[in-house]
Amino acid sequence: MLKKSFYPLLILTFLLSALSHYLHWGMELQFAFAGIAILFAAGLLGKATESVAHYAGQRLGGFLNATFGNAAELIIAIFLIKEGLFEIVKASLTGAIIGNLLLVLGASALTGGLKFKEQKFNVHLAGQNASLMLLAIIALFIPAIFVQTEHISVHDTLRMSEIVAAFLIIAYIGWLIYSMVTHKDLLADNEETKADHGESPGWSKSLSVVLLVVATVMVAFISEWLVHTLDAFSARFGLSELFIGAFVVAIVGNAAEHSAAIMLALKNKMGAAVEIAVGSSLQIALFVAPVLVFVSLLFGGGMNLIFTTIELAAIAVAVFIAISISRDGSTTWFEGMLLLFVYAILGVAFFFV
Amino acid sequence: MLKKSFYPLLILTFLLSALSHYLHWGMELQFAFAGIAILFAAGLLGKATESVAHYAGQRLGGFLNATFGNAAELIIAIFLIKEGLFEIVKASLTGAIIGNLLLVLGASALTGGLKFKEQKFNVHLAGQNASLMLLAIIALFIPAIFVQTEHISVHDTLRMSEIVAAFLIIAYIGWLIYSMVTHKDLLADNEETKADHGESPGWSKSLSVVLLVVATVMVAFISEWLVHTLDAFSARFGLSELFIGAFVVAIVGNAAEHSAAIMLALKNKMGAAVEIAVGSSLQIALFVAPVLVFVSLLFGGGMNLIFTTIELAAIAVAVFIAISISRDGSTTWFEGMLLLFVYAILGVAFFFV
Amino acid sequence: MLKKSFYPLLILTFLLSALSHYLHWGMELQFAFAGIAILFAAGLLGKATESVAHYAGQRLGGFLNATFGNAAELIIAIFLIKEGLFEIVKASLTGAIIGNLLLVLGASALTGGLKFKEQKFNVHLAGQNASLMLLAIIALFIPAIFVQTEHISVHDTLRMSEIVAAFLIIAYIGWLIYSMVTHKDLLADNEETKADHGESPGWSKSLSVVLLVVATVMVAFISEWLVHTLDAFSARFGLSELFIGAFVVAIVGNAAEHSAAIMLALKNKMGAAVEIAVGSSLQIALFVAPVLVFVSLLFGGGMNLIFTTIELAAIAVAVFIAISISRDGSTTWFEGMLLLFVYAILGVAFFFV
Repeated sequence: MLKKSFYPLLILTFLLSALSHYLHWGMELQFAFAGIAILFAAGLLGKATESVAHYAGQRLGGFLNATFGNAAELIIAIFLIKEGLFEIVKASLTGAIIGNLLLVLGASALTGGLKFKEQKFNVHLAGQNASLMLLAIIALFIPAIFVQTEHISVHDTLRMSEIVAAFLIIAYIGWLIYSMVTHKDLLADNEETKADHGESPGWSKSLSVVLLVVATVMVAFISEWLVHTLDAFSARFGLSELFIGAFVVAIVGNAAEHSAAIMLALKNKMGAAVEIAVGSSLQIALFVAPVLVFVSLLFGGGMNLIFTTIELAAIAVAVFIAISISRDGSTTWFEGMLLLFVYAILGVAFFFV
Repeated sequence: MLKKSFYPLLILTFLLSALSHYLHWGMELQFAFAGIAILFAAGLLGKATESVAHYAGQRLGGFLNATFGNAAELIIAIFLIKEGLFEIVKASLTGAIIGNLLLVLGASALTGGLKFKEQKFNVHLAGQNASLMLLAIIALFIPAIFVQTEHISVHDTLRMSEIVAAFLIIAYIGWLIYSMVTHKDLLADNEETKADHGESPGWSKSLSVVLLVVATVMVAFISEWLVHTLDAFSARFGLSELFIGAFVVAIVGNAAEHSAAIMLALKNKMGAAVEIAVGSSLQIALFVAPVLVFVSLLFGGGMNLIFTTIELAAIAVAVFIAISISRDGSTTWFEGMLLLFVYAILGVAFFFV
Repeated sequence: MLKKSFYPLLILTFLLSALSHYLHWGMELQFAFAGIAILFAAGLLGKATESVAHYAGQRLGGFLNATFGNAAELIIAIFLIKEGLFEIVKASLTGAIIGNLLLVLGASALTGGLKFKEQKFNVHLAGQNASLMLLAIIALFIPAIFVQTEHISVHDTLRMSEIVAAFLIIAYIGWLIYSMVTHKDLLADNEETKADHGESPGWSKSLSVVLLVVATVMVAFISEWLVHTLDAFSARFGLSELFIGAFVVAIVGNAAEHSAAIMLALKNKMGAAVEIAVGSSLQIALFVAPVLVFVSLLFGGGMNLIFTTIELAAIAVAVFIAISISRDGSTTWFEGMLLLFVYAILGVAFFFV
């Protein structure tokens, strides 16, 4: 259930962001208002998706929830692609993956771990997630290493990216069938956790659909306003596009997952928190990233899946430490702290680039 | 038991391959006939090895089975070395390793997994295999990274390769002692699986030895014919030597393991299927590859163990995903699909090089 | 309990080392005497630390033991920094990490495994250690890959190293709190092992403190004498500074851990042996290395945490194989042999550089 104060704040921040954009207020102000407004709009989008999913029935609902869970990131990325800012798109995908695996998971494990000595969850799920994350890394890593080593032509690089993107989308569909149809029981945490994860906001069916449309439109507008301010923001604070994409955009885009996961960890539902953090990373790597390759074709094409060495290094270390920590099906405060330290070390390194 | 139609086909394909070679038929025809003939000859070689192993008693038999399991690959590689085609040799070793870990294991897990919900096997074995595969990667990776970073002389590179090769062979002997003598019980799957793995073809002792010799000679001849067509084949289809070595030669050389593993998976004997796939990879990395370094000395020497960056990347990702998937001692259809996707992604990347 | 013959040998070797240094005997002789003398002095230092820890009470004692366990390495490194030999310092840190994870752990598992079929220990501890070692690798690896890829200025590189070093020290303090206060019970092996690990030499409280001071002074002196001979030693045997640092200095500095771990393994106390080997590596990576960055500031600064590619490769393979082997909470002779092989392969590669 959303708090009552949510709706006025949603409308107020949206209007402030719109005003600052159309009246050409200072760029810093535009950035700040758009950043805050998108937090609220993304929150509404998340709740509306859950509510539509609720009415769509368990199976289709789970699919909707899983696939549109990163709708905000997807919309932001589409606007970046329209502007031809491919490098910021890839930086923001990198940032979303490491943000979920390190910041969201780390903060959940730390805050949950300060309250409960050890928080357990389904080991099977952790194992499957590990294999899927490895597939994602491999799919991003292989083209990059081949392109760097062998000087493959730009045209072939794009072709290779499109084929790999198609494989990833098929693998993602396979994962949905596997986790929601054929091996559902194997991967389930205890039932209450599940139920609570998708806490319904109590809207009627038609209201849910309307709110889903409204939220999507709001996120789309604010995303465009936000993207326009990034140049000015990076110039103002002397930050590289890479840092902006990987840390600023990603943290803003992930704010909803972040608060939800911490809330669940504090209720000792670490399984659901892990599912949000790891599941969201998986969606980005296996679904959002490859979809964006095809989306870029609509705007004249040109975005490949070749990430830079440091982006790949960041994704790889995030995946390895998250796998190592979640493999045993339990987390503690210290493990949360380790994840946050790795995030901080990456932040420092990206800052100095 | 081999089917009755096997022997006529074996002889027919061998004769066709011989005729096409000595009468200088079209190169594509020579390649096709040799490729089909070697499948049958390798099948006979495998059965004859098993039968001789059967009569040699359990311990020596296990040793024979394990050590000569990749006899076909070894013979093909020796002919490639004789021709000085060191890079194709290393590409075909790479291909055999990734083919076993991804294609053979993936196809087994997928087909078996479509029939059975979850297929379990001995966790201990999976753990030991993981450590051994890591040793193999390290042994291939360390010299390569040192040579790339530090510009070591060609002479020193060869010396280093020979020393590392000697270590690997000793480690392999250690593994045979460990898995067949000192810790046999720890690694055993349930007994029926074991027994079935070496299903005896019912030949007498002397017939088995004769067939072993015959099969070896056949494989040797066809290998030489096959190697002669590779240049023409790669020119005809515009494929690189790397792709030919890593995918075409490797798939042909592994066909026997491939069908055997899938058959076992369909009988829900996934432990034996894993043993074939992973065991075969281990043999290639720890025994065939280092032996070939010493074999090359007989032909004037010059083959080192320095794999290219993309070969190492391919081996590393195959090992990591196979370890991640088999570590929990069970496989499902989805895990099989993941392995096949990684194989396909590698295939695409090698194709574009 | 130290043997009676220990004290005369300690004094004799110290005097011989002192004489050879001040009377300018042959460099080889100076090196040999200093190398032997430091083994005895490090042994006394270890025992004195344990004894002081014994009187300090369990909690503070554990802290002292853990933090000053690598006092000898730390002192040697400080003298190397004073001389500006930053590259040898980093090579010796690399050597200490791989020496502990491969040589000490491998020799313990091999000798223990020849006596006992399978040696078990606390799985939880192994998992936590794995995550911590990964953090250490990430912290060393990230700055290196960013510096190599992006040409960061020397000044920024130093700043980045100092920030990362600060994070590592905080993570280490977090680990001490976690393993000695909040989650002590979770990580404990069976009680007898623990007790035996810190076998008290039976000294009085004041004698322990006096001996701690004496041993520290002795180690400090011999370290300085030893450092002075390294140039001559490397020239005499044609060994690179890298090899000297990573293998010669590291083996000498780790001799105490080495013998202690083997003794424990032979008593079937593998948990304590693992704790020494892995714990010592963790201390070096998370405490000694970052402390040295700040120590170098006292001598005019300039030591960063940027390890070379081959040092990072060596540390990474050591960590991965050690994690793979210890993850299941048991070791066998064959696993010990694998660790020693990886050490030998690294030794060969470093030798040829």
